[in-house]
Amino acid sequence: MADFSIGDKLRLTVFGQSHGPAVGCVIDGFPAGRTIDRDRLAAFMARRAPGQNAWSTPRKEADEPEILSGLNEKGQTCGAPIAVLIRNTNTRSGDYAALQALPRPGHADLAAWRKYGKAWDGRGGGAFSARLTAPVCFAGALCMQELERLGVSLAAHIARVGGILDAVPDTVQPALPLYAPGAFPVIDEEKGEKMRQEIEKARQAGDSVDGDVRCLVTGLRPGLGGPYFGGLEGKISQALFGIPAVKGVQFGDTRRYGSENNDAYRVQNGSVVSSTNHCGGILGGISTGMPLHFLVSFKPTPSIALPQQTVDLRTMKEGALTVQGRHDPCVVPRAVPVVEAVTALMLTDLMLQGE
Amino acid sequence: MADFSIGDKLRLTVFGQSHGPAVGCVIDGFPAGRTIDRDRLAAFMARRAPGQNAWSTPRKEADEPEILSGLNEKGQTCGAPIAVLIRNTNTRSGDYAALQALPRPGHADLAAWRKYGKAWDGRGGGAFSARLTAPVCFAGALCMQELERLGVSLAAHIARVGGILDAVPDTVQPALPLYAPGAFPVIDEEKGEKMRQEIEKARQAGDSVDGDVRCLVTGLRPGLGGPYFGGLEGKISQALFGIPAVKGVQFGDTRRYGSENNDAYRVQNGSVVSSTNHCGGILGGISTGMPLHFLVSFKPTPSIALPQQTVDLRTMKEGALTVQGRHDPCVVPRAVPVVEAVTALMLTDLMLQGE
Amino acid sequence: MADFSIGDKLRLTVFGQSHGPAVGCVIDGFPAGRTIDRDRLAAFMARRAPGQNAWSTPRKEADEPEILSGLNEKGQTCGAPIAVLIRNTNTRSGDYAALQALPRPGHADLAAWRKYGKAWDGRGGGAFSARLTAPVCFAGALCMQELERLGVSLAAHIARVGGILDAVPDTVQPALPLYAPGAFPVIDEEKGEKMRQEIEKARQAGDSVDGDVRCLVTGLRPGLGGPYFGGLEGKISQALFGIPAVKGVQFGDTRRYGSENNDAYRVQNGSVVSSTNHCGGILGGISTGMPLHFLVSFKPTPSIALPQQTVDLRTMKEGALTVQGRHDPCVVPRAVPVVEAVTALMLTDLMLQGE
Amino acid sequence: MADFSIGDKLRLTVFGQSHGPAVGCVIDGFPAGRTIDRDRLAAFMARRAPGQNAWSTPRKEADEPEILSGLNEKGQTCGAPIAVLIRNTNTRSGDYAALQALPRPGHADLAAWRKYGKAWDGRGGGAFSARLTAPVCFAGALCMQELERLGVSLAAHIARVGGILDAVPDTVQPALPLYAPGAFPVIDEEKGEKMRQEIEKARQAGDSVDGDVRCLVTGLRPGLGGPYFGGLEGKISQALFGIPAVKGVQFGDTRRYGSENNDAYRVQNGSVVSSTNHCGGILGGISTGMPLHFLVSFKPTPSIALPQQTVDLRTMKEGALTVQGRHDPCVVPRAVPVVEAVTALMLTDLMLQGE
Repeated sequence: MADFSIGDKLRLTVFGQSHGPAVGCVIDGFPAGRTIDRDRLAAFMARRAPGQNAWSTPRKEADEPEILSGLNEKGQTCGAPIAVLIRNTNTRSGDYAALQALPRPGHADLAAWRKYGKAWDGRGGGAFSARLTAPVCFAGALCMQELERLGVSLAAHIARVGGILDAVPDTVQPALPLYAPGAFPVIDEEKGEKMRQEIEKARQAGDSVDGDVRCLVTGLRPGLGGPYFGGLEGKISQALFGIPAVKGVQFGDTRRYGSENNDAYRVQNGSVVSSTNHCGGILGGISTGMPLHFLVSFKPTPSIALPQQTVDLRTMKEGALTVQGRHDPCVVPRAVPVVEAVTALMLTDLMLQGE
Repeated sequence: MADFSIGDKLRLTVFGQSHGPAVGCVIDGFPAGRTIDRDRLAAFMARRAPGQNAWSTPRKEADEPEILSGLNEKGQTCGAPIAVLIRNTNTRSGDYAALQALPRPGHADLAAWRKYGKAWDGRGGGAFSARLTAPVCFAGALCMQELERLGVSLAAHIARVGGILDAVPDTVQPALPLYAPGAFPVIDEEKGEKMRQEIEKARQAGDSVDGDVRCLVTGLRPGLGGPYFGGLEGKISQALFGIPAVKGVQFGDTRRYGSENNDAYRVQNGSVVSSTNHCGGILGGISTGMPLHFLVSFKPTPSIALPQQTVDLRTMKEGALTVQGRHDPCVVPRAVPVVEAVTALMLTDLMLQGE
Repeated sequence: MADFSIGDKLRLTVFGQSHGPAVGCVIDGFPAGRTIDRDRLAAFMARRAPGQNAWSTPRKEADEPEILSGLNEKGQTCGAPIAVLIRNTNTRSGDYAALQALPRPGHADLAAWRKYGKAWDGRGGGAFSARLTAPVCFAGALCMQELERLGVSLAAHIARVGGILDAVPDTVQPALPLYAPGAFPVIDEEKGEKMRQEIEKARQAGDSVDGDVRCLVTGLRPGLGGPYFGGLEGKISQALFGIPAVKGVQFGDTRRYGSENNDAYRVQNGSVVSSTNHCGGILGGISTGMPLHFLVSFKPTPSIALPQQTVDLRTMKEGALTVQGRHDPCVVPRAVPVVEAVTALMLTDLMLQGE
Repeated sequence: MADFSIGDKLRLTVFGQSHGPAVGCVIDGFPAGRTIDRDRLAAFMARRAPGQNAWSTPRKEADEPEILSGLNEKGQTCGAPIAVLIRNTNTRSGDYAALQALPRPGHADLAAWRKYGKAWDGRGGGAFSARLTAPVCFAGALCMQELERLGVSLAAHIARVGGILDAVPDTVQPALPLYAPGAFPVIDEEKGEKMRQEIEKARQAGDSVDGDVRCLVTGLRPGLGGPYFGGLEGKISQALFGIPAVKGVQFGDTRRYGSENNDAYRVQNGSVVSSTNHCGGILGGISTGMPLHFLVSFKPTPSIALPQQTVDLRTMKEGALTVQGRHDPCVVPRAVPVVEAVTALMLTDLMLQGE
């Protein structure tokens, strides 16, 4: 139902196709009376934008969001749905023309064909394209500004690229990093250098590589979420799995035995906290007041330069396919702000519900 | 919103508390005209029932479901909501009496206290109790009978207990196991024996141990699910995270490099299939027609016999707590049918929607 | 989707069939820590119960609700879903046996047959039966107690039976009536007497008669609801049309010309109020702070004693049908608390959402 | 929740403000592979557009919808969300400038102020403006083309303006009218002439007048909708009350006594039909297969040229207000296609759900 929407009281609806006229979104339910910090919003979106450096696709996008609705004369949010439009300016359809009948392995092509039939727009992945994460980031940046008002901060980093792991942050009292556009979002810059080498190696081999993103949230009040199907994990994971290429989500860092996994309680400054935070800040589906932390796994970019075996749907003959076009050999660096964005969205929704 | 409900066209609502009069559920939207195979339904529920063997809690439950609504005179489903009641017959409140003010580490106690306040019923975990998975299994068993009519089969097995891994099934053409009540659901019985030893070891140490469940689905038509927030992974994971103690969900078995992770297409019996199935039967959020497979991670049972540190909420003094009562030292064996149940539920919902 | 459920944050799910073992409901999202006034709850439910007086069906129901879940040891709501069971004790199936193939004009029989097929349980209307409004009243009575805590009062009265109109209440500063069980809920007792005569006349003629219910709500804070599809009228009407036999809903008492319909603003006790209340306390889908008022139209009971023409679905032959059994010749008197109940439910849901 | 969205499987989200840069909508879930008849779509939208004739506001709007997403290279729908943008070209803010602090009687101004606070954009009614019905009509026109493929037709007419009633159509076998843009949509052209006189009279008096719209749907299969809260009446009315100025909805044309209201069954061409159709084609919330018909009541336009009493929210002083600007003295003529649009939307949604 409504594949391109998420959220209850705060509801995001995205639209667009990779090679259509535009992408964009509608954000319904955002509080009225907020002045949006446009510079920070642009800086956040720039973190996702392609074409900035060696480790991302050279495709350039202006990504200038036009706000069509939702602001009053003073530029404050006014209660009307916030609608945002980002024109597609750099769509090279030729790259993808023959692909419609030659489903790319690891891509949605064949699945989309089976769901939508021949009318499906396969150019650049159509509506499955990660291009739609640009408006998701717009919405997320807005929500992060709202969360900040509520005392909540969140940040993600690259936890892994291929076999290279970043340092593990303190999950009891984490220092949240704040990444500049263009920065490679890791905690340990040495590990970051190795990751970039791993990505470069994959690129030169015409291949791609997988990785993980870890997200941390601090300042969340206890009592958010609910038991059973209303749990924080379920709500957040539903949104995270909406990000293209996500294949796994893990909350906390479970230890093997109960005796080491249970986070013992103690008193700090007059309130009950836990000494460790293996539960990831969630017990029984409800926020405990400790920082939230979870790991999101991304598969390697399916678009690779190496020849792959596929089937021509017109002739039902097997044959080799070489995917043209420019692609990130690893989706993880640019996925970091997207993970932050959908997390911010779901948490803002829950807080607005008083949940 | 509506923590105890899940599903759109087929909607499950569960209710009950561990130490209240009853648990149960309402299933709205189940097709009319079905004759329920009660014996198989009972056999399925028995797989979850406690007290059957060494590796589960000795608490005995009759678990006799009474169907209050939803059947016609001939015992067929009639379109009315199917309401089911399971009386609680073996509730030893004394075990838990003092716990309300002494939150058990790793449990929902403190989080629930913060959400619901003092009125929260903490006896046996209240509404957070895994006891509510009994009606979930009732609903799931019903859906599995419906899926069978539609040519869909599903089965889960224990993929891991502590450090012991079960054999990995073929995910291209899996042979789905069918487990009898009382069976220990593994593929490799030798590994099963080692897992039971691991569980027994944890029990004797007054400790508990974690593990994974893998679920496989065959016969699913391609085209089910949708892009972005309508993806199969998001919908299924939301339901899975509703199962107590689930902390992670991983779809497919992602390989490190794109060249090995992409599942190449080939022709078999006139239709396009993939040679491998690392994507877990889902691309772009949509079923590909290959078997679905995913891994669900469970934390170790938080209830352990060892003393743990907690805080008395009345005095705000730290102190040791020893959890009384009888508990599974590993939730995984009995969680296997619950994973099957919620998966069946979500897939039936999607199929009824024509999605 | 989920025909038997309504509400977002507070969600009611009803179940049961007229001649099945029981009816009941699950209320998810009701605040924790409330002590239910059981006597007032029973008194409210008694207003809907049949068999009390000349103007309702002699079918007797114990209507003893058993609370299966949702209360703690002290009997307070505890955050768990509140599940309620009402056993059916007086089901005379024989009355309805042959009806399955002889659809009763004005009833859901044929429509249900077409939706659910032959498996549909037509006995007493099955799940379409007004018997399911008993658990709706349970839920509504609960919500009325919650609304009272929030300073909101509501009451409905019979506005019309056939051609007889009750007095029209002051809609600017209404005095809300409080009806005892067994009372005939009108403002003007003389009109009430005439209505009862109208009902009695219909009964003696083997016929039935239509009517209207007016509902008034005071104390509602301004700002509840929302524009467009989030409007109060839409939300409340969706719930009202869920009551069997409702065919129309009218908010406010619109005047013909704008100059007489617009409610002029004035200052009273330092706040802005309106001198009249033709808008029914709602403008732009949002509560204005003035009393809510709306009219709900009920069709005449379709079950009448006169012979009617129908078609035997087995033979496709036209023929006469005489409906047996005992039925209210006018549904309106017993519908009054049901209107109150669903109104209370929707308003509580909105208030809990902070909407 | 999500005030500006409606529908389950087919979901419409509208956005915009009367005096903002644009209005528009996103339609998620529309079937892929449809070629849109753009001429008929434009003709439908023209029926709602203002400025065409004596009985509507002279404000001119280009109303040129730009489709931003949802079509493939051939212009067919492709499964991606259909996003539509209509720029606002004729926004005279000066007309409304002082109104923010002077709530107009009968308008949403004060209610919006109370919901959104001072940041609310009151220019031209902001997001409450009927201007947003332009994208609603776009979506409705699309759905009407889909319904036509499924054999369903629908049309509405002006049933009443002030005291003037249009002819009542045959509701058993109605001949659906097809209105050209610019036509005054009535069945009886003489009555139409009198209605226009009534509207003109109101305009000259600086006043406005109320009215009703009747909608008819033919070709709908039996079995659509559901019992209780899933009923057709509830779903359709929720959408209808989303149209600005709607205050009442009445399904069918209920007769006073059961004996005349019950629609007797008979056999026609081998299938069961009813001789009359007082139930409006719906019984038990489910379509019977007979034509749907219902009446929608609109209040008189709140914007009138006569001076009205209001309160200056800055000074809390009562005073006279004269609303400037150009307004329809009767919303009903232009509301006719809007009623058709939201009806088409809800029916398409239900049919896509297989409900």
